[in-house]
Amino acid sequence: MSKKVDPRLSSGFRDYLPEEMIAREGMLDTIRGAFRTFGFLPLDTSMVEREEVLTGGDPNFKKQIFNVGMKGKKEKLALRFDLTVPLARVVAARRNELYQPFKRYEIGKTWRGERAQAGRFREFLQCDADIVGSESTASDAEILALVYEVMRALEAPRFVIKVNNRKILNGLPVFAGFPQSKMHNVLRTIDKLDKQGWVSVAKELERPDGGRLSKAVIMRIKKFLDSVNARAPLAAVEELFADIPVAMEGVKEIESIGKHLEALGVPERAWVFDPSIARGLGYYTGMVFETLLLDLPEFGSMCSGGRYDGLVANFSNMSVPAVGLSVGLDRLFSALEKLKRIPSSGTRAETIVLNFDPETEYECETLTTELRRAGIAADFYYGGEKTLKGQLAYAAKADYHVVLILGSEEWKKNMVQVKDMHRHSQENIPLREVSKTVERLCAEGR
Amino acid sequence: MSKKVDPRLSSGFRDYLPEEMIAREGMLDTIRGAFRTFGFLPLDTSMVEREEVLTGGDPNFKKQIFNVGMKGKKEKLALRFDLTVPLARVVAARRNELYQPFKRYEIGKTWRGERAQAGRFREFLQCDADIVGSESTASDAEILALVYEVMRALEAPRFVIKVNNRKILNGLPVFAGFPQSKMHNVLRTIDKLDKQGWVSVAKELERPDGGRLSKAVIMRIKKFLDSVNARAPLAAVEELFADIPVAMEGVKEIESIGKHLEALGVPERAWVFDPSIARGLGYYTGMVFETLLLDLPEFGSMCSGGRYDGLVANFSNMSVPAVGLSVGLDRLFSALEKLKRIPSSGTRAETIVLNFDPETEYECETLTTELRRAGIAADFYYGGEKTLKGQLAYAAKADYHVVLILGSEEWKKNMVQVKDMHRHSQENIPLREVSKTVERLCAEGR
Repeated sequence: MSKKVDPRLSSGFRDYLPEEMIAREGMLDTIRGAFRTFGFLPLDTSMVEREEVLTGGDPNFKKQIFNVGMKGKKEKLALRFDLTVPLARVVAARRNELYQPFKRYEIGKTWRGERAQAGRFREFLQCDADIVGSESTASDAEILALVYEVMRALEAPRFVIKVNNRKILNGLPVFAGFPQSKMHNVLRTIDKLDKQGWVSVAKELERPDGGRLSKAVIMRIKKFLDSVNARAPLAAVEELFADIPVAMEGVKEIESIGKHLEALGVPERAWVFDPSIARGLGYYTGMVFETLLLDLPEFGSMCSGGRYDGLVANFSNMSVPAVGLSVGLDRLFSALEKLKRIPSSGTRAETIVLNFDPETEYECETLTTELRRAGIAADFYYGGEKTLKGQLAYAAKADYHVVLILGSEEWKKNMVQVKDMHRHSQENIPLREVSKTVERLCAEGR
Repeated sequence: MSKKVDPRLSSGFRDYLPEEMIAREGMLDTIRGAFRTFGFLPLDTSMVEREEVLTGGDPNFKKQIFNVGMKGKKEKLALRFDLTVPLARVVAARRNELYQPFKRYEIGKTWRGERAQAGRFREFLQCDADIVGSESTASDAEILALVYEVMRALEAPRFVIKVNNRKILNGLPVFAGFPQSKMHNVLRTIDKLDKQGWVSVAKELERPDGGRLSKAVIMRIKKFLDSVNARAPLAAVEELFADIPVAMEGVKEIESIGKHLEALGVPERAWVFDPSIARGLGYYTGMVFETLLLDLPEFGSMCSGGRYDGLVANFSNMSVPAVGLSVGLDRLFSALEKLKRIPSSGTRAETIVLNFDPETEYECETLTTELRRAGIAADFYYGGEKTLKGQLAYAAKADYHVVLILGSEEWKKNMVQVKDMHRHSQENIPLREVSKTVERLCAEGR
């Protein structure tokens, strides 16, 4: 039909073929399971929001968002860039229907218009769990315990949760001697320490985008950040910031979180206080954290979040404390793949019933139905190959585990030929025992 | 913080709160399970496509789609309006990675810019399963058998799958006497028969948007449609269209599908031939179907689809046959809710450990962790209520099934107080037996 349309995606967008999706769905089931046992409930919010809801009128956000429009509709709409702002909107709009503490999870796509680069996509999946309506450090700790449980359940090897508190960072201007107005630039720069190292961070702090700080101020910041290397980093910070009340509040909160974590069964080696963790987003107000794989620190944080007590206030006069986590599934998948922790899944249903003898075509379909009703994922062949040989070659290439042959010969004897393609073995089985045999072969193969 | 943003959504968009989401997730698990046992594999495609991919250059489509844009990006992008066009794009673009027949399912949001009205949303979830690369009527039948299995597994009461074939409809211009060029308008009008009845359809056929047909032609169309009331509708059509080869091909295909359906275990009462089923979308080329709930026909089709052998050809020179189904989850949910077939789910995790005695706070957290590790969805209380009485009132209001009390008194005796809130009963249980007891209570309560 005339002109062909180029079947390509725009840069920054991608598809997931079955082999990858089977593994991703397995990970999602695990994550959802962890969220559920921790008592979180599913929420599903609109992917399209009014622009004003996302930006709060802040023009800085507009660079990052995708606008959505249709002919004849004047309202300014956009695709959500995270799952946290929609949650805050729902809490403000539906407050009479939601008991607090409200614990919800949401798993869904989000979009950011960042420059497309290797491994960075403009459409990506987030898995969030948040507690709304508790200001207790017990709820901070529960979020961290959930991070630990998710990483453990996914069999992630050697990871550490790095924890800090924005209140400690809020003491930094007083301690280092720079005005509060430069906080945003300074935090954004410090946040790069993990990836870029101190020399690069120090240089940026001198530049306008880093706050244009003096050498003396930068040395004070270094002194603060170096406390991570002390034998007891939190005690070191406590000493440095002893005179700064807001920072001391932050220190006390982390101490309290530590005690809760112990009670919640999170081993001490799984988390650490790290004063350089700031998190870029403006809305955090208390505890913040990142989760790194020790074998792949360059992949960045696999699971991040923190406390944001002010976000709902953008939408209503309520003051609602909140704390949450977000798992970056795409990044985590790439990392676990690199560490060879993604179980290799077949690309197929495990079983296929061939279809080469017109005399038994319907009997083969009935056999397929019986397998399916026994819970076995089964295909019935209706491709272009007509011969047994051609269909066997297809089944081998397509990597089916079990192949079933029921031609007129077998039908007469009430038997089915069962081929285990992985072991290159075969046997003849009475028709009524086929499901059981296939179940056994598939279970052994796993 | 100064000006508040109104926390409302744009019209046609919505959120799903936990109560509804728990039921929806249950339905999705059921649908996904049916797709998997039929040998379909997961695929996940980008939600944002290049506009040209969606419209194929056809300006008629542009009215329905939401455009997506960002500052500085000139490429025309849009949100997908179904999951079929993206599948065709993937098959064309990734043909070397995909074995055919390729059976995939995809569950995801889609968008259409139709006028927002009661029960009609602009963002909605679709659950699709398609077979690409088989032209056999066995694959048509497998799709219908999957529809039957999905509806059965969801415990949908009294439904019927109405099946037709575009090839039969393609004989209609010859039979009724109108030019091929009017087919599109005529089919779109006939498609409304179920909802609007014949009088309204006949009137529309006289109008320009219905094809501006003469009374004589309209009577011939009625004669064709009336065959649905014959004792054997397919035989009636076979008689009327005996001289029209393309229509006879369609009749033979439906006969063949019927035989496969029997072999696949689909009972005869579950499907029927209906010559009025046309399906609006232009891309169907063979079998088409809709699925109605007999108790709620006015809700329209719960699950629809058909054969579309030409779609991949929009993107490449390959000729690739394809057939598929799409479950409209939102509509099905509303219908099953109306028929009281949605199991009422609690709005909460089933169990909560209270937290009123500062002396045993950590012990209560450890107990919560033990429950979770035993697979029990458990909350730990960290809301604002400090007294036992206040927390019990909260737990009753929030509808927890089981409440656990572990204060200093209980701790001294190594016991936990277990309250079954549904039966208003309580017992003291040794600490180490709590998980087992809670499991039993929750299982009994289901």
